Amino acid sequence: MPAITYELIKQDEATGARAGIIHTPHGSFPTPIFMPVGTQGSVKGVSPEELKELGAGIVLSNTYHLFLRPGSQLVKEAGGLHKFMKWDGAILTDSGGFQVFSLGDLRKITEEGVTFRSHIDGSRKFLSPEVSMQVQMDIGSDIVMAFDECIPYPADYAYTKASTERTTRWAKRCKDYMTSPHQGLFGIVQGGMFKDLRTRSVQELVELDFPGYAVGGLSVGEPKDLMYDMLDHTVEQLPKDKPRYLMGVGTPDCLVEGVMHGIDMFDCVFPTRVARNGTAMTWQGRMVMKNAEYTHDFRPLEEDCDCYACRNYSRAYIRHLIRSNEIFGLRLLSLHNLRFLQRFTREMRQAIMEDRFGQFRREFLDQYNYNSKQTIG
Amino acid sequence: MPAITYELIKQDEATGARAGIIHTPHGSFPTPIFMPVGTQGSVKGVSPEELKELGAGIVLSNTYHLFLRPGSQLVKEAGGLHKFMKWDGAILTDSGGFQVFSLGDLRKITEEGVTFRSHIDGSRKFLSPEVSMQVQMDIGSDIVMAFDECIPYPADYAYTKASTERTTRWAKRCKDYMTSPHQGLFGIVQGGMFKDLRTRSVQELVELDFPGYAVGGLSVGEPKDLMYDMLDHTVEQLPKDKPRYLMGVGTPDCLVEGVMHGIDMFDCVFPTRVARNGTAMTWQGRMVMKNAEYTHDFRPLEEDCDCYACRNYSRAYIRHLIRSNEIFGLRLLSLHNLRFLQRFTREMRQAIMEDRFGQFRREFLDQYNYNSKQTIG
Repeated sequence: MPAITYELIKQDEATGARAGIIHTPHGSFPTPIFMPVGTQGSVKGVSPEELKELGAGIVLSNTYHLFLRPGSQLVKEAGGLHKFMKWDGAILTDSGGFQVFSLGDLRKITEEGVTFRSHIDGSRKFLSPEVSMQVQMDIGSDIVMAFDECIPYPADYAYTKASTERTTRWAKRCKDYMTSPHQGLFGIVQGGMFKDLRTRSVQELVELDFPGYAVGGLSVGEPKDLMYDMLDHTVEQLPKDKPRYLMGVGTPDCLVEGVMHGIDMFDCVFPTRVARNGTAMTWQGRMVMKNAEYTHDFRPLEEDCDCYACRNYSRAYIRHLIRSNEIFGLRLLSLHNLRFLQRFTREMRQAIMEDRFGQFRREFLDQYNYNSKQTIG
Repeated sequence: MPAITYELIKQDEATGARAGIIHTPHGSFPTPIFMPVGTQGSVKGVSPEELKELGAGIVLSNTYHLFLRPGSQLVKEAGGLHKFMKWDGAILTDSGGFQVFSLGDLRKITEEGVTFRSHIDGSRKFLSPEVSMQVQMDIGSDIVMAFDECIPYPADYAYTKASTERTTRWAKRCKDYMTSPHQGLFGIVQGGMFKDLRTRSVQELVELDFPGYAVGGLSVGEPKDLMYDMLDHTVEQLPKDKPRYLMGVGTPDCLVEGVMHGIDMFDCVFPTRVARNGTAMTWQGRMVMKNAEYTHDFRPLEEDCDCYACRNYSRAYIRHLIRSNEIFGLRLLSLHNLRFLQRFTREMRQAIMEDRFGQFRREFLDQYNYNSKQTIG
């Protein structure tokens, strides 16, 4: 029995959107799911009990950050990340690839791996498929991501082809190294914006038979139409009995499109990052809490929301906290935004169960007008 | 029946240290007590439920800050501060005097009151005994502090005398204005470092018959010996059947000395401020969590502590959070430090109940070695 298994419960008849369940050694959770991000072993400002209460079954943490600080040996010594951060739900760790490749001139890629300088102290570090797997084994995450190159946009065909082929070779090395029976290794599809390379990436990864697949290299600055075109092309070739994960996506409009294209899992720092900017996420779009219109507004952030912030506090109070730089304000907005995305994914799931996902999507996108300019997480 | 009443339960035979109970419209709490500070209507990073859990029966909030932002009218409109910040325990508000007088050249004192410039936007503002009372009535705090001048140190006799006399006149104006039956107004003893002026201040305030008295104008930079001498002199003249409050004091050594001199109530930003600097308060002194010695230390902050942080997390994890600027680290340290002071005041109370406070004080001060230089809160 593999560590990570997926049950497809229902597909929306018209769109193919999927409702499922993912089983892990640390519990099962329904999909589609949004995973809160705890970059450094803590979802910013939020306790594990609060994460449980708002319905998060899995959180994401970052190999790159934990590798540099406090070091994966220390996390292992603590008994693994679950114990270190006191979270008994599931944990997914990324591979560190995304962060390392984002360093630009500070890193050097070879077939063996990537040499780079730590953003913390400038010291020389090395990550490779084997090192990434060892770090993730030390961390003890339930879902482990393969070490890949996230190809920047734009990139030419030759570069994309060479990089994608290397990512496949690296995926094989990851699989050979990752032998822990309690952890499930997901492959990451690359291929840039070239359909034939995406196809080849899928085929070669599926041959390696991972318990799940991520669609990587999207949401990297390309136009949205192109992103959805690539997503569509990629997902339709992935096996139906494995979960599909769209990395780094967390705005509601991208979530609804992702689900329509057959995605099951999402993650993004978006909800906690905008909370720290004083922004609440709602079904109608973003609310910038500093705005004067909320001064005397004693309603909750959202009338029908059951989160801790909405059960207890008014917009006027939260506005006061944000204007006064009170960290409790960030905490309330983080709780609300994370709960919003849990409610949002559960509503999507319900719509799928009732074969009305297409209608849900249209109605949602119609009413959803961003108050501010939108960035893809 | 006055809004605020005090029951003297027990006095330590040798030292005269007091164990009591204060009754307020929002519950009763044992004394000696330390009041967490929620300057702007929020104890930094801590929820009301967490405050309850750690044993806080009363919190302090600041008239000056709420007056400027969001404005006391808004707090009133919200149904008062209890409702605004969702805290159903007791609230004490200071009068704004301390902050206004700290503004130095930015304020001008007349008999009528103080004109000053807001530190937020530079706008011209006015606080007087009547305005301070109105603001505190809008806020709806249980314990209201009289509007006084906190005399700086050093100050000459003539200035101290004139200021103390004005504080007494202002105290009378406060009493005349504050008519709410659900709020108790405390007088504030001034008199600087002059015993005869302290005596006169006490006598004139006691004549006005307040339900409680604060000892103001201490811990303003004077030597500790002088502070305790003045405290001793002041407290012994205060009525035994009313609570006594030493303002702005929150380090354990000052608390134990204050209690020995007959003080019942304390407040200070110290525990949450040092938490934000990554410091834990313990029976042995301060722990600076960034220090390398905690890297592999998987023990809780304090072995015998029952706070949320100590029940769940290791020093190594908290050190990691602090080094990584994770706000959950500040939250854990704030919870621990506030709980530490609750445990500390309860231990003092127990020692008083058992007539061994003198021994408790000696043993505590012997073992308590500050790791870093000490500032009086």
